[in-house]
Amino acid sequence: MGDQVSLAVSTVIFALRPHPRTHRPVLWLPLVRRIRAPHQGRWALPGGPLASDEGLAASAARNLRETTRLTPQYLEQLYAFGGLDRASTADERTVSVIYWALVRPEEADAGEAGVNVQWFVADELPELAFDHSLIVEYALWRLRNKVEYSRIAAAFLGETFTLAELRAVHEAVLQRTLDPANFRRQMETAGRLVATEAFRTGGRHRPARLYRHDQSIHLADNGPLTGL
Amino acid sequence: MGDQVSLAVSTVIFALRPHPRTHRPVLWLPLVRRIRAPHQGRWALPGGPLASDEGLAASAARNLRETTRLTPQYLEQLYAFGGLDRASTADERTVSVIYWALVRPEEADAGEAGVNVQWFVADELPELAFDHSLIVEYALWRLRNKVEYSRIAAAFLGETFTLAELRAVHEAVLQRTLDPANFRRQMETAGRLVATEAFRTGGRHRPARLYRHDQSIHLADNGPLTGL
Repeated sequence: MGDQVSLAVSTVIFALRPHPRTHRPVLWLPLVRRIRAPHQGRWALPGGPLASDEGLAASAARNLRETTRLTPQYLEQLYAFGGLDRASTADERTVSVIYWALVRPEEADAGEAGVNVQWFVADELPELAFDHSLIVEYALWRLRNKVEYSRIAAAFLGETFTLAELRAVHEAVLQRTLDPANFRRQMETAGRLVATEAFRTGGRHRPARLYRHDQSIHLADNGPLTGL
Repeated sequence: MGDQVSLAVSTVIFALRPHPRTHRPVLWLPLVRRIRAPHQGRWALPGGPLASDEGLAASAARNLRETTRLTPQYLEQLYAFGGLDRASTADERTVSVIYWALVRPEEADAGEAGVNVQWFVADELPELAFDHSLIVEYALWRLRNKVEYSRIAAAFLGETFTLAELRAVHEAVLQRTLDPANFRRQMETAGRLVATEAFRTGGRHRPARLYRHDQSIHLADNGPLTGL
């Protein structure tokens, strides 16, 4: 076997920011413009070959740091893509382990973008290099599923938040309007929220109670792998 | 960089079978005894190096076939393990992409075990080769989580099943007794079951209605990756 299989790590980084036209919060992600062949000039997920002395998650965290200057708040392995058809040249095959990171808006703003990096609206991307369009599609699908049964939405919020703020995240991720009363009921049933004694005041609205997530539930819950 | 990172694929194969002492259904998995160093003589998950001309899922399906003579009913990617500490020798590093397969009891019985293969009760394993004990622990954790919010339990059952049979699968996976009335309510709320007009008759019990899963929901739901 002359042909080796190489390993790469790439990272899908999501943040919520206002849409440039509608000004409603939507998912954005940063992409890196490829400066060499193959797919030169195309946009791609931040990533690269796995260094032999670097762990998978460490490599993903480095992608995040180099692209956005951020340290991960939420970073989780998404999927390993290794189809035979994803090679760019006949004698080269790459298996890519994909991570995803979720960052808060203020983090995404503070994080100065790296060279050749640009943020895009996740649902309005140009065609990406390699199979990265499919990878982003899968990441969006997973996020939209996961927001229904986990506390993943918290990764986009601060320590405490109002129910309206949490609902806004769900609406932005799911791309549909949610009924406030139904949403409140669902959140109460799920039992992942803890009501605090603090309220968000000011603005045009009456004070709204602040909630936090049950800290006994890990944000990126990997069970026996937590901390590895 | 003289040190290469190699790629392997291993597969965790679960089936429900009676416990040898309690005779209650519990999770079993097949292991392969290692016949060469490192970890010679230890039990390990079926798997091996990724062939350069084989896809990841195809490699996992081959593990399953060679270990149990079975073709996959449910086969899904679980996780990629790539820590720096999992190398067995100083100058070798392996990233393992792990798949998991769920097989029905009759399949597990029909499948003749391969050479050096033996089935074990999943919660009563000896110490395994490499980090395979951790991998099995993670697979069990994922299965126990996933059974709560998906139709994964169906992979252990036939086309149609009674609520009592489905509950027995949940009880075996979760290792605890479930209240029949609560379980029925939960299943009705989740809306993943379709009642058929057929009944399971015979035996000591009164006829029990047969259900099937909503076929519009994929068993291993990978969204945009389905069929890849």
